[in-house]
Amino acid sequence: MGTTVLSVLATEIVIPVCAVVGIIFSLVQWFLVSRVKLTTERHGSSSSPNSNKNGFGDYLIEEEEGLNDHNVVVKCADIQNAISEGATSFLFTEYQYVGVFMVAFAILIFIFLGSVEGFSTKSRPCTYDDQKMCKPALATAIFSTVSFLLGAITSILSGYLGMKIATYANARTTLEARKGVGKAFIIAFRSGAVMGFLLAANGLLVLYIAINLFKIYYGDDWEGLFEAITGYGLGGSSMALFGRVGGGIYTKAADVGADLVGKVERNIPEDDPRNPAVIADNVGDNVGDIAGMGSDLFGSYAESSCAALVVASISSFGINHDFTAMSYPLLISSMGIIVCLITTIFATDFCEIKAVKEIEPALKKQLIISTVLMTVGIAVISWIALPSSFTIFNFGTQKDVKNWQLFLCVGVGLWAGLIIGFVTEYYTSNAYSPVQDVADSCRTGAATNVIFGLALGYKSVIIPIFAIAVSIFVSFSFAAMYGIAVAALGMLSTIATGLAIDAYGPISDNAGGIAEMAGMSHRIRERTDALDAAGNTTAAIGKGFAIGSAALVSLALFGAFVSRAAISTVDVLTPKVFIGLIVGAMLPYWFSAMTMKSVGSAALKMVEEVRRQFNTIPGLMEGLAKPDYATCVKISTDASIKEMIPPGALVMLTPLIVGTFFGVETLSGVLAGSLVSGVQIAISASNTGGAWDNAKKYIEAGASEHARTLGPKGSEPHKAAVIGDTIGDPLKDTSGPSLNILIKLMAVESLVFAPFFATHGGLLFKIF
Amino acid sequence: MGTTVLSVLATEIVIPVCAVVGIIFSLVQWFLVSRVKLTTERHGSSSSPNSNKNGFGDYLIEEEEGLNDHNVVVKCADIQNAISEGATSFLFTEYQYVGVFMVAFAILIFIFLGSVEGFSTKSRPCTYDDQKMCKPALATAIFSTVSFLLGAITSILSGYLGMKIATYANARTTLEARKGVGKAFIIAFRSGAVMGFLLAANGLLVLYIAINLFKIYYGDDWEGLFEAITGYGLGGSSMALFGRVGGGIYTKAADVGADLVGKVERNIPEDDPRNPAVIADNVGDNVGDIAGMGSDLFGSYAESSCAALVVASISSFGINHDFTAMSYPLLISSMGIIVCLITTIFATDFCEIKAVKEIEPALKKQLIISTVLMTVGIAVISWIALPSSFTIFNFGTQKDVKNWQLFLCVGVGLWAGLIIGFVTEYYTSNAYSPVQDVADSCRTGAATNVIFGLALGYKSVIIPIFAIAVSIFVSFSFAAMYGIAVAALGMLSTIATGLAIDAYGPISDNAGGIAEMAGMSHRIRERTDALDAAGNTTAAIGKGFAIGSAALVSLALFGAFVSRAAISTVDVLTPKVFIGLIVGAMLPYWFSAMTMKSVGSAALKMVEEVRRQFNTIPGLMEGLAKPDYATCVKISTDASIKEMIPPGALVMLTPLIVGTFFGVETLSGVLAGSLVSGVQIAISASNTGGAWDNAKKYIEAGASEHARTLGPKGSEPHKAAVIGDTIGDPLKDTSGPSLNILIKLMAVESLVFAPFFATHGGLLFKIF
Repeated sequence: MGTTVLSVLATEIVIPVCAVVGIIFSLVQWFLVSRVKLTTERHGSSSSPNSNKNGFGDYLIEEEEGLNDHNVVVKCADIQNAISEGATSFLFTEYQYVGVFMVAFAILIFIFLGSVEGFSTKSRPCTYDDQKMCKPALATAIFSTVSFLLGAITSILSGYLGMKIATYANARTTLEARKGVGKAFIIAFRSGAVMGFLLAANGLLVLYIAINLFKIYYGDDWEGLFEAITGYGLGGSSMALFGRVGGGIYTKAADVGADLVGKVERNIPEDDPRNPAVIADNVGDNVGDIAGMGSDLFGSYAESSCAALVVASISSFGINHDFTAMSYPLLISSMGIIVCLITTIFATDFCEIKAVKEIEPALKKQLIISTVLMTVGIAVISWIALPSSFTIFNFGTQKDVKNWQLFLCVGVGLWAGLIIGFVTEYYTSNAYSPVQDVADSCRTGAATNVIFGLALGYKSVIIPIFAIAVSIFVSFSFAAMYGIAVAALGMLSTIATGLAIDAYGPISDNAGGIAEMAGMSHRIRERTDALDAAGNTTAAIGKGFAIGSAALVSLALFGAFVSRAAISTVDVLTPKVFIGLIVGAMLPYWFSAMTMKSVGSAALKMVEEVRRQFNTIPGLMEGLAKPDYATCVKISTDASIKEMIPPGALVMLTPLIVGTFFGVETLSGVLAGSLVSGVQIAISASNTGGAWDNAKKYIEAGASEHARTLGPKGSEPHKAAVIGDTIGDPLKDTSGPSLNILIKLMAVESLVFAPFFATHGGLLFKIF
Repeated sequence: MGTTVLSVLATEIVIPVCAVVGIIFSLVQWFLVSRVKLTTERHGSSSSPNSNKNGFGDYLIEEEEGLNDHNVVVKCADIQNAISEGATSFLFTEYQYVGVFMVAFAILIFIFLGSVEGFSTKSRPCTYDDQKMCKPALATAIFSTVSFLLGAITSILSGYLGMKIATYANARTTLEARKGVGKAFIIAFRSGAVMGFLLAANGLLVLYIAINLFKIYYGDDWEGLFEAITGYGLGGSSMALFGRVGGGIYTKAADVGADLVGKVERNIPEDDPRNPAVIADNVGDNVGDIAGMGSDLFGSYAESSCAALVVASISSFGINHDFTAMSYPLLISSMGIIVCLITTIFATDFCEIKAVKEIEPALKKQLIISTVLMTVGIAVISWIALPSSFTIFNFGTQKDVKNWQLFLCVGVGLWAGLIIGFVTEYYTSNAYSPVQDVADSCRTGAATNVIFGLALGYKSVIIPIFAIAVSIFVSFSFAAMYGIAVAALGMLSTIATGLAIDAYGPISDNAGGIAEMAGMSHRIRERTDALDAAGNTTAAIGKGFAIGSAALVSLALFGAFVSRAAISTVDVLTPKVFIGLIVGAMLPYWFSAMTMKSVGSAALKMVEEVRRQFNTIPGLMEGLAKPDYATCVKISTDASIKEMIPPGALVMLTPLIVGTFFGVETLSGVLAGSLVSGVQIAISASNTGGAWDNAKKYIEAGASEHARTLGPKGSEPHKAAVIGDTIGDPLKDTSGPSLNILIKLMAVESLVFAPFFATHGGLLFKIF
């Protein structure tokens, strides 16, 4: 044991300061975005000398055009308003329903956890050290409920703010695209950064404040304090589940519906304003890909922090009340904010985009820079915030760990994330042979395209799984479950940059949609398309990160659950565990079946409505009449609200039912099974979908000799590619990314309810 | 403990007698099939008074037609010869390559197992009871190698004979179809029965003889004897792997290739003789669906018997040298042959098919009758062949078991099989809403069809997994790993009927192909199509059985492996096991990626060849010139031989590499992971494929008002359905069914090599 370089006071100051710096930085970015005016009176101010500050004024690579077209700006503003209103109204409806659920679930948490000791207000012996007295179970019940609600609200806030920023930025990106692809890139990227930093800083700050407030009551009972704090992770992830599923169904019902009639039947371009589902489609990008993704990654972040904290609380950090070492996970996140801030400046101020082909490398460079810098950052934090030697709780025993070992744990997670990111890029970017092969298979029709696409997705699982396995082995060997938790945190430490890159995609996508709808020239559309294609790949990379971190997080939570539930081994070769394992491995399939069917049914309704409008509204195809956008928005909203309930219930209720009736052993099996099975489906579904999307874009763009033999738009191979793209939509944006929430959420829920299951669980086996 | 009702002598007599009865019965069936003559001189003899014996002569429901058309018979005979020759030549090529591999692997087995004790010829202390002396490890090496080769040869024989019978029967079925659907059904079903009984009886007989011969050397060392016998299961499954993968690639490359150009581009019907790939397609049915399936189920049967025997040998049966109780698994199989014999007579002699709609119920009745009768049969065997109380080895301890508990273990497996069968039928037959919904989704194109089909497959996993979980829980709780092994055996006890039903499908499919190619009338084709549609569903049911039993078998083998490798627990929460688990869960994806890509690439080559022939052979489309069938056969052959190596190597080498370098704990994780993950993909892939196939048939048949709104052939929904069908081909006939071999094979291989791994395994961890 030893002392830490960083004093407790310094720790107490550093964390909130970093969080506030992150928030201020995001406000600065927002201010820079807001200088692109959407009112024509002052339009052009964005090309005032100020913009030279960023070094772009003199380097415009494309000719400026349409800068003075008053109508275009008005149109863009109108469309932006329509999208923003649609998204806001959907999110409010969604939050109403989810709000009711959250309150009900909060009550459930209180009752379940309160009943552990019969709602007694007396102190009780601690779980891990029965010589000491800890706060009553009722306190855990109350504080868990509070932190659950806090997590849910923070998650809602994250998603909502992300959406607001994205809808604020999309038309501005379109307008900047008139001045060149570099300008547009900067706006879209800055907006993404606003979201990324706001989310990371906000999550850290709320968690920090909650810990400090809870500490007033808990005092030295850190075991109880951090057990209660895990509710924060549960709240964040529950909200994320509904956000992902609801948003995912919304966006893909609209997207599939719009494409099937528009692109396939009517042969009109994507985002054509004549398509009645076009507004719903653009709203979907914001509620699904932005708000959903924001909530999801916030959830991962909150859970990995909670998992690390709860394990630390029963390790030497917690036992010795070493606050600085205890705050190691939070310090890592704080460092992450600073590192990402520096990384962002590289993209916005040190480099410049001069041509389309520079966009993707610029985004990739962000990942590399942040990872390299963060490695140094982790080393610094590990050196100043940890004693040189300490012990970590490892299923009943304490394991000796050195500070450099913990550095390796965090580092291996960080670099595994980068590897997963690059593998994902390799399999989903149309710059490499896998996607080109898929595009090539379109020659023989949609069937071979689908076969090749599915095979690509399956294949893309291999390296990420090995990367995850190595991370697990290294971090587990060094520091048991704490090692896994901080490895997950390492993967998520550059979350601000990850989210910035991620949010950039849908913003560019929307920008393209607005350009099309506003009737801007073909060249503008080409620029936004180029931004969007890069965004597709980065979205896939973001999903790779989300899934990889989810796997590590849920393993850490699983370990914490097993410790809390006082199980000594999870032996596969006992019937209770094995049936859990095989049923758990089935759950992702059940869940995917539900979500995909939901998208399919909602899309069918959308198709019928779009067809109806094309058939009954005279002059619609000729562009003389306006379609009824609102009905399509309503169909997507209703469908997603209705359809998100069953898959949500499946995930939320499974741990409760299994734990209560079959007990903690079977529940352990379920968690392990759903984890190892779900991660594969999630990765393959995301990558298959991403590859189909980019195979289509590859044919459309016709950038190479090979691509041109497959095109142009409307050719038979292109039609086959569109079918693949449509099939990929629910895979990559609904079922795939929801699965990582499934595995995380079941684990964190089990952990929160562990005191109840350990006491009252396994009713069925007790009866027989 | 107690004695058994059945004496040792009676046991020694009953088993071979039942096996011989099975073989005689299959010869009788073959004789009945052979009475349909393929030579015109004596044609019509099948409609001689003899056929009245089966009660059909007077009940012809359809008008006889074309009975005297000399040309048709000659044509049918010609086509049959072409198919038979193609299949024989492919199988010989395949066996050559596999033969080389088998010899190499046999040497490997000998070296690995011989090296355990340094090729010492001295007796050594027994593994499970070191007070006694057992035969040397070298003996295990020699006898394991011999039984491995025996298993491989029996498997080859099973597949080859099945193929021979099927190609013998297909044209005969076509000719009988001229007389009515009932006649044709009987011929196809009888031919299936020939294969089913030959395989079941043959497998039993060879195993029985091997045990008795080995016993001459081993004497009272039953532990060593049955350890060596497990090589039989490994041999059977290794062969099955190559049979399934090679055959699966062959058949689907041809099928997809033929369909993509024929049906989609040229708009000519399925099996049209103008299509150059048509012979390859029909050959494929025989080498993939018949020979592959035969080897597969033989493998499952051999492995579950071996798993049960090896566990029994270290239980009280083996310790007390109670030969009757020891032979319980073989007696169950013997009883199965008798029960299936009675069941078959129900179909061929007691019932009669008068109309198309009676076919599917008749096949389903077979399953129900055999299951009900077998339940009684199991009860009888459990009563006469088991002492009323005995002990079973359970990871180091002995567990008390009653004979009625073992009856329940076998029974739960048997009935779980039936449930899986019926769920599979529900999800893949076009008589029910799931497939009709998929068909309906074709209205909006191929994309929604694929989305709905994938969702259907995912959903169809739920009940089978629960059925498997319940079987595992019940049989595990009662009789540990022995319970699981006999539950698997219970599921496979009606294998003769299962195979008869299963083989019936491809035979009918071929019959339809021959009818089309011989230019027979539309009505004949309708009859064979009706037979084929029922066959599609039964094929899916057969795959359900194969997968369900594979799951149980591999768990039993896994358990035996763990016992043999002397691991006490397989704790998920140790890093060694967990990385095995997650990598194991990934393997089915890797394997599927390989096989699907192989089918895709081979199909692309086929498409190009077929297109080339259509474009370069003048008069081909008009039916004036003959296509070059041989080139297409060659493409399929070459592709499947070349492409079966990498996936085969993946499966065969993984246990060796993991066991040698990472040790038995990690290998345990890999086995558990691949089992729980693979079973899900296998079920969903098979059912998705089956559903797409039948959705297409539903539209084509137009039997209901709803179906007619989607049709007719060539309509847009029909085209979408064809795309789905094509995508489903590799899923349901290549990657899906190969996966159950993957999970079984890795488990049995681990078991065979367990002595080596336990002694020398885990090199990597030993070094570091």
